[in-house]
Amino acid sequence: MIDADRLHRWLGDLAAIGRTPGGGVCRLAASHDDGLARDWFRARLGEEGLRVAVDAVGNVFGVAELAGPDAPLVLTGSHLDSQPSGGRYDGAYGVLAGLEALLAVRRRTAQGGGKPARNLGVVSWTNEEGARFSPSTLGSAVFAGLVDADFALSRADGDGVTLGAALADIGYRGADAPPRNVAAYVELHIEQGPELERAGSTIGVVEGNWGTVKYVADIEGRAAHTGPTPMAARRDALLPAAELVLCCRQMSDRTGGALVSSVGRLDVQPNSTNVVPGRVRLFAEFRALDPTMLADACARFEAKARALSTEAVPVALTRTVDRPAGAFDARLRDLIEDTAKACGYASLRLNTVAGHDSIPLKAVCPSAMIFVPSATGVSHHESEFTTPEDLAAGAQVLAATLARLAELA
Amino acid sequence: MIDADRLHRWLGDLAAIGRTPGGGVCRLAASHDDGLARDWFRARLGEEGLRVAVDAVGNVFGVAELAGPDAPLVLTGSHLDSQPSGGRYDGAYGVLAGLEALLAVRRRTAQGGGKPARNLGVVSWTNEEGARFSPSTLGSAVFAGLVDADFALSRADGDGVTLGAALADIGYRGADAPPRNVAAYVELHIEQGPELERAGSTIGVVEGNWGTVKYVADIEGRAAHTGPTPMAARRDALLPAAELVLCCRQMSDRTGGALVSSVGRLDVQPNSTNVVPGRVRLFAEFRALDPTMLADACARFEAKARALSTEAVPVALTRTVDRPAGAFDARLRDLIEDTAKACGYASLRLNTVAGHDSIPLKAVCPSAMIFVPSATGVSHHESEFTTPEDLAAGAQVLAATLARLAELA
Repeated sequence: MIDADRLHRWLGDLAAIGRTPGGGVCRLAASHDDGLARDWFRARLGEEGLRVAVDAVGNVFGVAELAGPDAPLVLTGSHLDSQPSGGRYDGAYGVLAGLEALLAVRRRTAQGGGKPARNLGVVSWTNEEGARFSPSTLGSAVFAGLVDADFALSRADGDGVTLGAALADIGYRGADAPPRNVAAYVELHIEQGPELERAGSTIGVVEGNWGTVKYVADIEGRAAHTGPTPMAARRDALLPAAELVLCCRQMSDRTGGALVSSVGRLDVQPNSTNVVPGRVRLFAEFRALDPTMLADACARFEAKARALSTEAVPVALTRTVDRPAGAFDARLRDLIEDTAKACGYASLRLNTVAGHDSIPLKAVCPSAMIFVPSATGVSHHESEFTTPEDLAAGAQVLAATLARLAELA
Repeated sequence: MIDADRLHRWLGDLAAIGRTPGGGVCRLAASHDDGLARDWFRARLGEEGLRVAVDAVGNVFGVAELAGPDAPLVLTGSHLDSQPSGGRYDGAYGVLAGLEALLAVRRRTAQGGGKPARNLGVVSWTNEEGARFSPSTLGSAVFAGLVDADFALSRADGDGVTLGAALADIGYRGADAPPRNVAAYVELHIEQGPELERAGSTIGVVEGNWGTVKYVADIEGRAAHTGPTPMAARRDALLPAAELVLCCRQMSDRTGGALVSSVGRLDVQPNSTNVVPGRVRLFAEFRALDPTMLADACARFEAKARALSTEAVPVALTRTVDRPAGAFDARLRDLIEDTAKACGYASLRLNTVAGHDSIPLKAVCPSAMIFVPSATGVSHHESEFTTPEDLAAGAQVLAATLARLAELA
């Protein structure tokens, strides 16, 4: 049903935009290369005669009005932005396979394969990664009404450039109303973990998402010469930071890995060999399926930060993300499982540890996810890989799912 | 004898070049603002009719031929480059007060105050700080024959720009032969520590320098998604880095601060909140007056790095600086002490914990240093401060020292 060759060609074309020397991509949200990727995507939407809308926070929608302007919309999609040295499938796959699946359903409809009761749409959400602008899944959160567009547009990157200014720069601070009356959202994504590969399953039916809490720790010391400044007089902001890094790992180790934690980013000021670090900003996160385990970890981490904080080197902790664990729509999960089986693929029920745009979407419509395997579980790395066969299988299951959701009859 | 008003005006003029919002300066070596500072300095040398030379690594010399072209040279000076958020006196004071002292001696000579047997020169050395290009005191080390000019010019900053290219950009990759036949080098500098202030002394006679060993630790992990990547599968390069940071401090604490150590810089790749750190470069240093204590610290640190290194996350340590403790020239030290007394200032003998251009200069001529107090011992910080009275006193003692070294008779 889907055109797998075209999907692979599209993935290759898109991976050339922002390509890194190591074979991955760098398309930070609202960067020049993200703009080129958006242009490329919008050109494909236009070629296919879809109705294009770019909303106030740069989410790009393409809609096929199969059932008339007032019919409910079944939406699929993901994101085109990436990590600084990300892989070519994270997000891009869900957008391109989403478009391919939509076109496959439309083709079938045009060939007399049923009369749809719902329209179909594909979307690329702004700033899913959160690598340039914090927090992540910002575009979908605005769409779902969880945060204001003004809040999103005022988020600043490390250089002080706001999302609003960056979107305006690349021509994606849109004025279109986003589509409403969304009946369902289904997102196709690479797993980014090892479970499907281990189980030998092609299709993952995502039960729900782990809970996630993220913190920013601001540590204020005082820059000083690393030579003549007496040790007792130093206010070294890097010391409490190092303690917090080790604390996170120790807490995870005590749970045997059921609590996932990490410090992915550490900004040291002035970060010069001869200067005692005067200021450190540390980004820590905790994830767990069990809400009690997550709450306990947060309490311990906050206590550790309080214990490390002194008058000379205060440590201030801000909770920036608090995403509770939760389930995706039960009816959609069953539908995906059933569809995968009908398509001839073995499926596995699993949870997503990572955040996805499908999570904020739960606030406005039934939402669910389909996973395909990630080779050796690797993601957020240039070597991220999924076999062409698995990519095609995921797109096929998505197309069949969309066809059923569009109520072809 | 010196013109203190002009010295203060010059210090103010120079501090305006690369001024930071917090009242300090950012003049990284061979940057645009370092170029402007060099232009400003060269203009002053030209106005005063000194013979200007810019050598292959951008050291800028101004020579007053008081005793004819073949007479030995007494040299003073320091550096105009700064830390990223440095103070206005570190280095700049030694260059400007050096010029003022030289001019004061020449004035006295012109007014019949003796016939000099030696010429006088002032120099601004390239890349003393080591903040942009590693190692520090690079220009003076080339002058002293301790490293090749080619080695110095090939040093690259964090963006891969070499010192040679950066100097060419600002017009300071010179072709002049540096002055030779140097009879003595005396450098005036702020103390950058609290000893003079504590002792109530105006002039520091620097006995010698502490030993310093600097390391770069390269830690190779693997970038991965901070969510779905199982804890046991992670190769987090930040964990050994955090251990090394704490190890340094613990070693210093065990010596009661006699061993000075720090990690001033930590480069994390890709440094994104959602990515397990794949690579960390850590810059550590140890300083001690006692060579045995320093050697012991290095052995322990190297053992710690070996113990932390695993197949999954190897830690590679490189020793980038190995500067043994040593004394400055005894005759010069006595001369400075005697001159300070003759000028009416209380002096204190002390050692420098920081590196200075005066240390490589020991390889080619008798070398010594004069310190003036740093308020509360603060340096490498925008709030670095020395009183105008102390600045004038230091310049006065330097001028009187230069006069005696020039053998005015």
